[in-house]
Amino acid sequence: MTTLLTPRSELEWRIGRVQTRLRRDGFDGAIIVGNANRFYLSGTIQQGHLLLPAEGEPLLLIRRDLERARAESALPSVEPLGSLRETATALRRLGLGAVARLGLELDILPVDHFRRYVAALPKTDFHDVARLLRQVRSLKSAFERERQSEAAVQADAALRAGAAALKEGMTESELASVVIGELFRCGHQGLLRVRAFNQEMVFAHAFAGPDAGIASFLDTPFAGRGLTPAVAQGSGRRPIGRSEPVVIDIAGAVDGYLVDQTRTLCLGPLPARFAEGYEFCRNTLDWTRTAARPGVVAGEVYRIAVERAGAAGYGHMFMGMHPKQVSFIGHGIGLEVDELPVIARGVEAVLEEGQVIALEPKLVFPDEGAVGIEDSFVVGPTALEPITISDSGLWEL
Amino acid sequence: MTTLLTPRSELEWRIGRVQTRLRRDGFDGAIIVGNANRFYLSGTIQQGHLLLPAEGEPLLLIRRDLERARAESALPSVEPLGSLRETATALRRLGLGAVARLGLELDILPVDHFRRYVAALPKTDFHDVARLLRQVRSLKSAFERERQSEAAVQADAALRAGAAALKEGMTESELASVVIGELFRCGHQGLLRVRAFNQEMVFAHAFAGPDAGIASFLDTPFAGRGLTPAVAQGSGRRPIGRSEPVVIDIAGAVDGYLVDQTRTLCLGPLPARFAEGYEFCRNTLDWTRTAARPGVVAGEVYRIAVERAGAAGYGHMFMGMHPKQVSFIGHGIGLEVDELPVIARGVEAVLEEGQVIALEPKLVFPDEGAVGIEDSFVVGPTALEPITISDSGLWEL
Repeated sequence: MTTLLTPRSELEWRIGRVQTRLRRDGFDGAIIVGNANRFYLSGTIQQGHLLLPAEGEPLLLIRRDLERARAESALPSVEPLGSLRETATALRRLGLGAVARLGLELDILPVDHFRRYVAALPKTDFHDVARLLRQVRSLKSAFERERQSEAAVQADAALRAGAAALKEGMTESELASVVIGELFRCGHQGLLRVRAFNQEMVFAHAFAGPDAGIASFLDTPFAGRGLTPAVAQGSGRRPIGRSEPVVIDIAGAVDGYLVDQTRTLCLGPLPARFAEGYEFCRNTLDWTRTAARPGVVAGEVYRIAVERAGAAGYGHMFMGMHPKQVSFIGHGIGLEVDELPVIARGVEAVLEEGQVIALEPKLVFPDEGAVGIEDSFVVGPTALEPITISDSGLWEL
Repeated sequence: MTTLLTPRSELEWRIGRVQTRLRRDGFDGAIIVGNANRFYLSGTIQQGHLLLPAEGEPLLLIRRDLERARAESALPSVEPLGSLRETATALRRLGLGAVARLGLELDILPVDHFRRYVAALPKTDFHDVARLLRQVRSLKSAFERERQSEAAVQADAALRAGAAALKEGMTESELASVVIGELFRCGHQGLLRVRAFNQEMVFAHAFAGPDAGIASFLDTPFAGRGLTPAVAQGSGRRPIGRSEPVVIDIAGAVDGYLVDQTRTLCLGPLPARFAEGYEFCRNTLDWTRTAARPGVVAGEVYRIAVERAGAAGYGHMFMGMHPKQVSFIGHGIGLEVDELPVIARGVEAVLEEGQVIALEPKLVFPDEGAVGIEDSFVVGPTALEPITISDSGLWEL
């Protein structure tokens, strides 16, 4: 059976923080259904749900596989889940009567599943706790950051494998396959969780020349041409030439935890306009290192970054091609790639020490190419502390 | 921009079949929201929704990226989607008044998204059309089967790469990384879509010895130990020894379309009890080739297969380890890995010519190992016609 990963003390810290917020928001408890949050609070993704009272011990009910859930979860109470009706009985055991105000993750719970909960618990008043849980998860423990540091080692190895393999005439997709093969060789978990409905993400994108800047449904500055409209993102069939910018965007993933990093490479020297663009991106990232401090409003960091891009003459190409720019320069990252906080237009939330964010200043040169850099950081007491470890210079090969 | 993939005639055939069923079930139309169905009916996964009246031309409304959606979709009407309120206006243009009975995919639509539709269209009567759409999609066109044949070539290449790399002492995970690297080298799309809530699947599993038979939340006969409880499936860190069964389960994926195949390998000769078990699996698959004909009840094929396993003395180990067996021997496969029809206990639906199914007779020898075979087939007029192409013998290396 799989070894236990998440220690009980870690689960207790997480559960305590959720319970504090549940009480603050007037909830009697929550039923945690989605894989990411269930894993976060119980240590297992075995199928079932976690009954979490606002006060007291949680109860993990498992339909499949109970034996494995008991091995994987450090929670003391892991019991079989029969029908949803039995959940009503279980909730009473936790001191939650029939008339309770309970949280559910309404941002991911499908309507038909929700209706089964409503049918089984007809007097319960269900409300969304998706944001509450995302806020709790935005702050990472030392345990979580260690997993992310392991994912950073994986991403670095994959980047170096890509750089070593890069040859003139090889296609974007061939380059990406080397990067992804190395990710798996280094123990990539094989899944990349995205929370937003209908958003999907491939483990690594390798782009070259003009194809990098192509927009798609994906909420990223570059999405790429991809191999097929069925996926509509990522590396395509374009052969990579000399002296054009090559962008490799990689998600490392260990024990559920992700990091995100991007580097710009070139076969031979990168032409000056791109190299200058890259320097701007790198300087912008350096500037955020001290600008994105605890207590700073996230939307302000975004606003000033955009202002800096405008002043440098990159306003029309910063974070995507005008008018298709995305309205963020960074995002929280952890069990999912699209976590809080988002460093985006108008966001009033302040940054907190211990949050982990990926920052990705990028530029698209219309019909020519794209350059950029991305690193994942912990928000430290006075500055961002890098988690990703790859050399941040231009990779001229 | 991405080349158009799905021809207009293909979309019209698909849309016509959905519309016939919408009318039969008393729907005025449907709003298609999820990536898989939207891609199926429009040719693009760009973000937005497809307004599909029960009669007449559909309208694809796109929030991001409109230009790309227009290039990717052969539908004549692709327009910008502003707010959901504008959808009401658009529906009227399609002849659908405010008081309409509309279908939505309630098996995947999150509650908070559903509530936005209800708020924007307060007089509309929404009902689930998930099953209707899954039934339409269960029947594959020649166009779709061609994509699946390409995916089969990819799966075969990945299996051969795995077989060529297999060495004593290499871990399951190292073997899987070779298989997955080759899948990507051969143009794997980089995503594997699963419809069921909370089900997730890694592109390829390589298992060896006793670890193959470990159960998990995943609805498969073998799930494997995996690298981490955060994923709880797939290849683990166990070194592969001589004379033990090695199972490689691969999903090829081209242009959205999947195939599923499994083969059993061994370094050196496979001990007799496993080899006999494999022969039983192979014979069972051969038997289904003619048993699973159009008009045959799916549940009957399952029942007889289980009966055959019992008669051969494999009752306690067929389709997983007792008492954790899954209750199916096959499943539809196409844009998603868990399509209709399911060849499962009690299923009364009859098989139809043109459906594509993966059949996977497998055995778990408790604490020893697992063997099995899986191929993807089209239901032909008198017998199943294979799509997957790998040599179906034991791969003794």
